[in-house]
Amino acid sequence: MTTIAFIGLGAMGRPMARRLVEAQHRVTGFDLNPEALAYLESKGGHAARSAAEAARGADMAVLMVVNAEQAEAALFEGGALAALKPDASVILMATCPPARVAAIARRVEAAGRRFVDAPVSGGVVGAEAGSLTIMAAAPRALFEAVQPVLAAMGSRLFHVGEEAGQGATVKTVNQLLCGVHIAVAAEAFALAEKAGVDTALMLDILTQSAAGSWMLSNRGPRMLEAEPEVTSAVDIFVKDLSIVMDAGRAAHTALPLAAAAHQMFLAASGSGHGKADDSQVIRAYRALNGTRDA
Amino acid sequence: MTTIAFIGLGAMGRPMARRLVEAQHRVTGFDLNPEALAYLESKGGHAARSAAEAARGADMAVLMVVNAEQAEAALFEGGALAALKPDASVILMATCPPARVAAIARRVEAAGRRFVDAPVSGGVVGAEAGSLTIMAAAPRALFEAVQPVLAAMGSRLFHVGEEAGQGATVKTVNQLLCGVHIAVAAEAFALAEKAGVDTALMLDILTQSAAGSWMLSNRGPRMLEAEPEVTSAVDIFVKDLSIVMDAGRAAHTALPLAAAAHQMFLAASGSGHGKADDSQVIRAYRALNGTRDA
Repeated sequence: MTTIAFIGLGAMGRPMARRLVEAQHRVTGFDLNPEALAYLESKGGHAARSAAEAARGADMAVLMVVNAEQAEAALFEGGALAALKPDASVILMATCPPARVAAIARRVEAAGRRFVDAPVSGGVVGAEAGSLTIMAAAPRALFEAVQPVLAAMGSRLFHVGEEAGQGATVKTVNQLLCGVHIAVAAEAFALAEKAGVDTALMLDILTQSAAGSWMLSNRGPRMLEAEPEVTSAVDIFVKDLSIVMDAGRAAHTALPLAAAAHQMFLAASGSGHGKADDSQVIRAYRALNGTRDA
Repeated sequence: MTTIAFIGLGAMGRPMARRLVEAQHRVTGFDLNPEALAYLESKGGHAARSAAEAARGADMAVLMVVNAEQAEAALFEGGALAALKPDASVILMATCPPARVAAIARRVEAAGRRFVDAPVSGGVVGAEAGSLTIMAAAPRALFEAVQPVLAAMGSRLFHVGEEAGQGATVKTVNQLLCGVHIAVAAEAFALAEKAGVDTALMLDILTQSAAGSWMLSNRGPRMLEAEPEVTSAVDIFVKDLSIVMDAGRAAHTALPLAAAAHQMFLAASGSGHGKADDSQVIRAYRALNGTRDA
């Protein structure tokens, strides 16, 4: 049994923390949302009133916050890092810019703790089922030491490198592909709508052809709905493609497709659709082409 | 048994014509390449010295040529249309611009023949196996009449509309997605190479995640080879994305991702890689970012 501080109980963090409880770990959670804390307690976990309180004497801190700023606030200003056991591990699972992750790792290690860069893929469905893909970068011995904890949350664990930031890089590349695949599906439907093709039939054809992608199958049906359920918001890809573009700048690498896709998500958000399902990036295409009002 | 003129015996046309022979049709082929004619004869088909000779008295002409120009040359200047039986059908299966297909249909119908706009997806592998996806536009009765012939070449037959050009539109949208998916895979690998990530491991992770696409799985491994086998050339996507951009112009629809992908294929071709496997669009990214020489 590991004593775990779980910081960030959002749509992803809640089921991840629940699975750690079910795996017989002692989990103390922190989130600003009291409902999230009540949920964790109802599943057998414990609630803390601050990140530092959650971390007090813990073997491990798992961070599933929104972004790098929140991770830094919890660990450093919030005092969670200093409250952990002296040889504790910090596992950062949020999607953050690779260079930022490397900088956080340096501060964690300077305080004598160990750091695992371990972003995830698979969404809320994967978090609920414990079937997330986890792209972990850490010294191999440390990766092996935390593997039982990671295995409670993900079914596909990859050791992608020894250096903090390499996990974040794989996740960044993952998001580059995901974001462009959603945007290009919207671009394809926008053209089909203008050309008067039956888009539902077209979706059926394309998902089974060489044109298929996981995102086309998953987001395509919602793209054709007027007000689809929100499974992940436009603004998440505004953020994730910002990280992609920042990684491109840091590596001095031109990313023309990701840049164009980012502009479309920004336009969708700027037109007031930031909270809509990310499939609704198609609204930016419709506005661009005058098919419907934005 | 249908008497079929098969015009265009390239990498796709050869196995498609062979499958028609195997389905007990009388197939007479025409191609400028004598090896292609010898192949068809070796499989039980017949060889003609011109498109008109292949078409003489045939019930049907199937065109699997490189582009619309070749289709027009064979049908009109080449005399194939006039040589067909008076109530014959012309089935255009090459990838052509939608507006051009509609114009060819008008000329075919003005000559009293019937026209089926029936582009395919699935590549040489699908053509060999008779498992192509066929996106056919024609009046429904005509679609049903030619269905047995189409079924010898494809296992997924879709009636996408009544009007010539609608099949080509669906194929155009298909190629938009395919071309962007190949280019964005190259963009993803280019970033990963610059960031020092293990690209083979990354490919393994991404193909099984939400970042996956048919093209990533199919082209990804060849993208990481220095001199991969050519299954489809860079110049095919230079052409197909030209058709996509023309369709966007005709529909007054902005296609920012397809436009960016097209530029990358053009750059790869312009650097001398037009005959290389289309996965080698990654060379344009490497040149752009100075990772390796173009």
